[in-house]
Amino acid sequence: MIKLAIDAMGGDNAPEITVKGAMLAVQNFKDIELTLYGDEEKIRALLTNPERITIVNAPKQIDMGEKDPVSEIRRNKDTSMVMAFSAVKNKEAAGVVTAGPTQGAIVAAHIVVRRIKGMKRVALCPNVPSFRKGGSIMLDVGANTEIKAEHMLQHAQFASIFYRETRGVESPKVALLNIGSEPGKGRDLEKEVFKLLSDNKNINFVGNLEPKELLTSDVDIILTDGFTGNIAMKTFEGSAKAMGMGLKKQIKSSIPAMIGGLLMKKALKRFKRQFSADEIGGANIFGVDGVIVKAHGSSNDFAFMNAINQARVVILGDVVEKMKKIISENPLSDDEA
Amino acid sequence: MIKLAIDAMGGDNAPEITVKGAMLAVQNFKDIELTLYGDEEKIRALLTNPERITIVNAPKQIDMGEKDPVSEIRRNKDTSMVMAFSAVKNKEAAGVVTAGPTQGAIVAAHIVVRRIKGMKRVALCPNVPSFRKGGSIMLDVGANTEIKAEHMLQHAQFASIFYRETRGVESPKVALLNIGSEPGKGRDLEKEVFKLLSDNKNINFVGNLEPKELLTSDVDIILTDGFTGNIAMKTFEGSAKAMGMGLKKQIKSSIPAMIGGLLMKKALKRFKRQFSADEIGGANIFGVDGVIVKAHGSSNDFAFMNAINQARVVILGDVVEKMKKIISENPLSDDEA
Repeated sequence: MIKLAIDAMGGDNAPEITVKGAMLAVQNFKDIELTLYGDEEKIRALLTNPERITIVNAPKQIDMGEKDPVSEIRRNKDTSMVMAFSAVKNKEAAGVVTAGPTQGAIVAAHIVVRRIKGMKRVALCPNVPSFRKGGSIMLDVGANTEIKAEHMLQHAQFASIFYRETRGVESPKVALLNIGSEPGKGRDLEKEVFKLLSDNKNINFVGNLEPKELLTSDVDIILTDGFTGNIAMKTFEGSAKAMGMGLKKQIKSSIPAMIGGLLMKKALKRFKRQFSADEIGGANIFGVDGVIVKAHGSSNDFAFMNAINQARVVILGDVVEKMKKIISENPLSDDEA
Repeated sequence: MIKLAIDAMGGDNAPEITVKGAMLAVQNFKDIELTLYGDEEKIRALLTNPERITIVNAPKQIDMGEKDPVSEIRRNKDTSMVMAFSAVKNKEAAGVVTAGPTQGAIVAAHIVVRRIKGMKRVALCPNVPSFRKGGSIMLDVGANTEIKAEHMLQHAQFASIFYRETRGVESPKVALLNIGSEPGKGRDLEKEVFKLLSDNKNINFVGNLEPKELLTSDVDIILTDGFTGNIAMKTFEGSAKAMGMGLKKQIKSSIPAMIGGLLMKKALKRFKRQFSADEIGGANIFGVDGVIVKAHGSSNDFAFMNAINQARVVILGDVVEKMKKIISENPLSDDEA
């Protein structure tokens, strides 16, 4: 049995969608057992089928408006998020799923679950909307604002194991997000990472990737630093938002366009869904000693079930243990913790 | 009379569209005189109305595939681009317009026209597609890969003068592109720039801007370093491309959607145009002693005329001289050239 801890109170529509998502998950995946952390009374009222689901009362929630997530996490050990993450730390669960605030999850990953020994930086790794079956993943998109080249090499190694074990691709293609496709492009950081990736025989490095190919390339893993990755993800979000607005405006611009828009209603819905954050699935937090999936705050029950399955698949692939092996064989001399 | 140098051979469809664009420009703007640099024979064959247009023969063109633009520019002084830029250096023209390669234009700006004394870095500053009349400009999007905070302050000053003089906005709003909207977000660079902008009384600094608001905010000037800005612009391009593909696919997905797509044909064309690079206009290269407008490589004659007008408006606004004054009053102690 795979044991997973669920932050039942995280996200915009908790605990309704988290409890429904949990019930969907146990129904679809017979090898999982869930512990839901949150307001016991509320959860019990929603839990129509408690099979393989346990509730642990967590009286408080992480404050979304909190400006200092570190002290918030440190101070509030009785929140649903911290209690669920602690279950991973204490080996009561192999993984945790939360739809709570991203910064809170990253901080809790650091200070509650803690990094794998020798792993220098954690990374936030979402799926990238893509036309391709399987699709791309990108990391880091915001766990670090400044990073060294050798830490990015570890991220590439982690992501390669993850992609291989969860998507069944033997030798996933890794590209470096950069301002030009030719070697020698970018800042000193990109130039160093380019060299490290080129020299590493265990990474299938395919070179630089320009962001204009971000959603349409056949690359599996897009490597970048947390600042740049965050800018790219949010620029995509902003572009999608602006283009959605522009399309709506044009549909309203004439009678034929309005009729056309009505006829295209279903197709436009599918179009919207294809680029919607909710459909992209959860993001993994790599680098800690346990599996963490951060579902979107606006997840519905189906998306939350998918996030739970995402944690399940990473555990089945034994990704964390395989990364530990690589780290012990390739220790970084870096003197930082 | 405003004298402008035109690189008649730059761009995907030169000299056809550059010559047509030049003729459109002199027709619409009675205060300009153009010198076209390029293949004299070809230009003369296209030039049906030579009023206020002179041709100077430039036997060669910058090679688009060139890997080392610096030596390319240095070696080939008889290319249409270098000759047109030299006209600005020699004060034969107040500005230059090219649809040639961006990196070539940035290098020629540096080593042919040269920076304003005391201006530490040039910047590439395009318009950002926007729903708002006037719209936003963003800089730097690729003239520099690494930059210091005080150089970005100069960019903000330059852009503020530019925006005021060319758009008639007395106190243009400047925002810093960042991974969060709250103060204190970002790398050391963003934190330093945030402080410099906050402390400067001549800049209307409105705080951090997240890229998810890139196309929909009411900010006039979006400040960023050249690496991040390039990533953001290219991510927008990639998003637009992927969403265009996704929309096309959905239109073909069912009979009603196909009919709907036909009825929306004109509206969809307007939608496409709204986010097309060609409609956004040329990018300015700020920081050199003269006005440089880089039109899109795929410009049509109308877009190229607009680029010529863009140079004209910057000259009418006396932007370069006003920036020189600010620099002389606020010299940077930085010991770099």
